[in-house]
Amino acid sequence: MTAPLVIAVDCSTTAAKAIVVDTDGRVVGTGSQPLTTRSPAPHWFEQDAAQWWTATSGAVTQALSGIPDRGAVAAVCVTHQRESFVCLDETGAPLRPAILWMDGRAAAEVRSYGTERVELLSGKPADITPGLYKLLWLRDREPDTMARCHRVADVHSYLVHAMTGRWVSSTASVDPLAVVDQATGDYSDELLALAGLRRDQLPDLVASGSSLGPLDSGVADAWGLRRNAVVIAGTGDGQAGGIGLAVTDPGAAYLVLGTAVVIGSETMSYVPARAYRSMISAMPGQSTVETFSSSGTYLSTWFRQEFGDPALAGAPDPALEREAAALPVGSERLLTLPYWNGAQTPHWDGQASGVTLGWQGCHTRAHFYRSLLEGIALELRLQLDGLEAARGERVEVLRATGGGARSALWTQILADVFDRPLQVCASAEVSALGAAALALTAIGAHPTLPDAAAAVSTTDAVVSPRPDAAAAYRQLRAVYERVYAQTRELMHTLHELPPL
Amino acid sequence: MTAPLVIAVDCSTTAAKAIVVDTDGRVVGTGSQPLTTRSPAPHWFEQDAAQWWTATSGAVTQALSGIPDRGAVAAVCVTHQRESFVCLDETGAPLRPAILWMDGRAAAEVRSYGTERVELLSGKPADITPGLYKLLWLRDREPDTMARCHRVADVHSYLVHAMTGRWVSSTASVDPLAVVDQATGDYSDELLALAGLRRDQLPDLVASGSSLGPLDSGVADAWGLRRNAVVIAGTGDGQAGGIGLAVTDPGAAYLVLGTAVVIGSETMSYVPARAYRSMISAMPGQSTVETFSSSGTYLSTWFRQEFGDPALAGAPDPALEREAAALPVGSERLLTLPYWNGAQTPHWDGQASGVTLGWQGCHTRAHFYRSLLEGIALELRLQLDGLEAARGERVEVLRATGGGARSALWTQILADVFDRPLQVCASAEVSALGAAALALTAIGAHPTLPDAAAAVSTTDAVVSPRPDAAAAYRQLRAVYERVYAQTRELMHTLHELPPL
Repeated sequence: MTAPLVIAVDCSTTAAKAIVVDTDGRVVGTGSQPLTTRSPAPHWFEQDAAQWWTATSGAVTQALSGIPDRGAVAAVCVTHQRESFVCLDETGAPLRPAILWMDGRAAAEVRSYGTERVELLSGKPADITPGLYKLLWLRDREPDTMARCHRVADVHSYLVHAMTGRWVSSTASVDPLAVVDQATGDYSDELLALAGLRRDQLPDLVASGSSLGPLDSGVADAWGLRRNAVVIAGTGDGQAGGIGLAVTDPGAAYLVLGTAVVIGSETMSYVPARAYRSMISAMPGQSTVETFSSSGTYLSTWFRQEFGDPALAGAPDPALEREAAALPVGSERLLTLPYWNGAQTPHWDGQASGVTLGWQGCHTRAHFYRSLLEGIALELRLQLDGLEAARGERVEVLRATGGGARSALWTQILADVFDRPLQVCASAEVSALGAAALALTAIGAHPTLPDAAAAVSTTDAVVSPRPDAAAAYRQLRAVYERVYAQTRELMHTLHELPPL
Repeated sequence: MTAPLVIAVDCSTTAAKAIVVDTDGRVVGTGSQPLTTRSPAPHWFEQDAAQWWTATSGAVTQALSGIPDRGAVAAVCVTHQRESFVCLDETGAPLRPAILWMDGRAAAEVRSYGTERVELLSGKPADITPGLYKLLWLRDREPDTMARCHRVADVHSYLVHAMTGRWVSSTASVDPLAVVDQATGDYSDELLALAGLRRDQLPDLVASGSSLGPLDSGVADAWGLRRNAVVIAGTGDGQAGGIGLAVTDPGAAYLVLGTAVVIGSETMSYVPARAYRSMISAMPGQSTVETFSSSGTYLSTWFRQEFGDPALAGAPDPALEREAAALPVGSERLLTLPYWNGAQTPHWDGQASGVTLGWQGCHTRAHFYRSLLEGIALELRLQLDGLEAARGERVEVLRATGGGARSALWTQILADVFDRPLQVCASAEVSALGAAALALTAIGAHPTLPDAAAAVSTTDAVVSPRPDAAAAYRQLRAVYERVYAQTRELMHTLHELPPL
C-alpha cells in the first residue's frame, strides 16, 4: 500500500496555492493560480468569491499533475486569507463582490461600534480588519444586500461548501469575522445581534482538524482522487503559519516579516489584552495571539523605490545592504518611528505617521535605510514585550519567515534587538505546511498536531544575538519607547490640518 | 580727467576676491585667488595669515590687469571673513596659524565663559564663532603663544597693516572678536580683562568709511597705482553684504542663502536680544543684527549627494526641482526641523538634530527634498519674527542673495513663507560691492552710504508671495513652531547616549 499523501491549499490574498505533502512533511507537488483584487474606490478592496474556488481547483490540479498515484491522497485541508467574506443568496451565488481584510471602508463603523465590550467579546482591537465592522457597514449602507443575504461565508466556508456541499467551517476560520465569543468558542449572541445576523446565516462550527466529510464526488473525479478522500477543517493563514513553523505553545513565537509584520504566539486559554489580538487556535482550548504592524517590507521596499538605484526598481540592493550592515548599532543616533501607515499594536492610532529623529550631517542614505530596519525591529520588540507582559509568559524561541527573513542584515538586527536567537525559515509556504500538518494529524500520520508541525517545519538558519549589539539596542530602546508619546500630539495636529 | 575707480577686496574663507568698480557701481575688473584651509583636528580650522595678503595682492593684480588707466584708482576698501584672527610677534610674524570663525575648538570655553553678561556686552549669543572664546582657549591651552603675542589681528587689520603699515582697523571689522562694548562702540575693559588682553595688543579703532591713509608706496607701485590712493576702513563680509544689497535701515533685510543662512537688518541703536547677534554697523550709530542657521544649501546639497542622481554628484537637479515644485504646500504633511548641524538662532542648541515628522507611504523622494527646503524657510521665518519682535520694527523689503537664490523653487517657498515679496540679487559679489560703496562714499562719488549702496546694488528678479500658499504656510507654521520644544528632550537624550 502506498504511503498516504495530503493536499494543503492556501487561498491567500494574491493567489490560491496548493501543495501535495507526504507523511514526512516533504512537498511533492505544488500549484498556484493568481487572484484578482479590484479597488473600486479609495481604500476599498474586493474579489470575486467564485474565483476563490476556480483558482483553488486550478492550483490543486496543477499540484497533482506530477503525482503518479493520486489515489494515495487521503485528505484535503484549506488555509486562507482571514477576515474576508462574501454574502450569498439562497442558491449560494454572491450578492456582491467579496470584501477583503484590508478594505478600509468601515473606518466610521470602527469608531462607532468598536467598544471595549466588543473588543473583549471578540478578542480583537477595534480596527478596519475584523469582518464585523464591514458587516455593520453593509447593514447600514447596503440594506438590500443584507435583506437578501442567506449565507455569510468566509473563504474557508466558501471553499468547504464547494468541496463538500456542506455549510460548515472551523471556528478558527470563521473567528476573524469577530462574531465568535473568545471565552466560549461559540458564536456570541451579543455580537450577532449587533451585526444584525442570525446563526443560520453562518456556518456550523467545528474544531480545526475535524473531518468535514468526503469530497464531493464530482470534485474528487475532476481532481482524479479517490472518492473517500476527506476534507479536514483548516484555519486562517496566520494560525496555520504558526503551525507550519512549529509554534504550538506559549514558549515559541512566529515572526512574519512580510509587507506587514506579525508576531504570533499561543496562550493556554483566552487572556484578553490590547497588547495583541486573540484568535481561536487550531490547538484545542488555546488562543493564538498576534501583534500587527503594517510597516514591514512595505517600508524597506518604499525606501528602495524612492531612494534606491533606479535600475533595481525597488528590488533588494546588495550594495545598500552591505553599506547599512557596516554601520554601528543605532545608525549613529538616527532613530525612526516606522508608522508610515499609521500605528497598529499597541497604539492603534490611524493618525500616527513616521518620524525620523536625530538627523546629522554625517548621515548617509545607508544610515536612513538601516534606521528604518532598526525602527521596525524596535517596534516589534515593543510588541513582544507587551505580549509577554499581558500574558505573563516569556517567548524563548522565535521563528521568522516571510520575504524579510532573506535579509541577513535585518535578521541580525532583529536577533540583536530581541536579544534571542532567531530561527529563520526560508519556505514561502509555511501556512500551507500548517494546513498539511492538520491533515496529516487527522489521517493519523502523526499522533498529535505538535508532532505533525515539527515534521513539516524546517529551519534554514539560526541567527544569534551579539551581546554588545544587544546591550546597545537596550539603550536605544529606552529612547525609542518614548518617541511615540512625545510626538503623538504633533502627528495628530499635522494629520488634522485642513488640505494645504 | 578720468572718472575715479575704486578697488574692493573680499578676503572670504575660501578666496580673496577683488573687483574694480566705477562711480556708477559698474564692475570693470575682477580677480580671485583661493585660500587654503587646514583642519589639523576634528572641528579645528586654520589658515596661514600670510596667504590672506598674498592672495589679496594677487586678486587685486588680476582685477587690474585689464584696466587701461590704473591711475584712476582713488581708493581701496577691504571686507572679509569675520571672527577669524591671528596672533603676531613683535615683527608682525604669525606665532601660529590663524584660527577661523567656524573653528569649534573652544566649545568648553563657550560653556564656561558665555555668560549673560558677556552676551550683553558683546551683543553676541554664546557660540563657537566669536573670537573671544578662542582667545580664552589660547590663554589656557597655549600660554606661550599669548605670552609672546604682540598683536591680535583680525583679517581686516592684517591686510590694512600690509597695505599701510598702520595698526588700525574699523570697529565693525574688529567687533566679531567680541571684545567691543556694543553700547559704547569702544573696547570693553571688562571683556579685554576676561580675555587677558591689553588695548595695545589690538588695533586702534575708526569708523567704517574713514580714510586709513595712503597705500604703502611699495604696494602702490606693485599694483601700478598712483601713490596717493587711499585705504578706506571696511567692515565684515556680512555687514558689507547688507550694504551691497542696499540694506541700510531697519525697513529692509538681507537674506543670505549660502551653505549657512543669515537674515540681517539694522537697528538705529544697540538693542540687546538673544533673537540675533548685534554688530557694529558701517552706518554710524547703528547696529547690524543677524540671525544665523547653519542649515542652508548645506542641507539641499547633502540631500542631492545622498539621495540624488549619482551622475550629478550633488549638483542641482532640474528634474528633482520640478517634481518638488509640483507638490502642494507642506509636502503633503511632511515636516522637517532642519537642525542637521545643531540649532542656532534662537535656540543655540548644539545637541539639537534634524527631525522629519509625518512620513506616509505616499511620500516620495521629492517630498523629502521639498520638506527640507520648507523646513529651512520655516526656521528663517521664525528667526525673522523673533528679530522683528525683539526690536519692535517690521521688515518690509527682503533681498536675497547666495547660491540658494538661484533656485526658483526655494525663493518661491521663501516668499510664500515670509508672505512678503523677495527681491533676488544674483551677484556673487555683494560683500565686495558693499566695500566698494564704502570707498565710493569716502571719495565723495556719492553723498551718503545709502546712496552709494543703491548705486552698487542690483535686483535681478522679484518673487511675489502667493496668497493661498502664504495662508497654508501660516497653518503649517503653527505646527512647526512647536516641534523643537516637543522633541528637544528626545534629541538631547539621543545625543547623550554613550557610543553604541
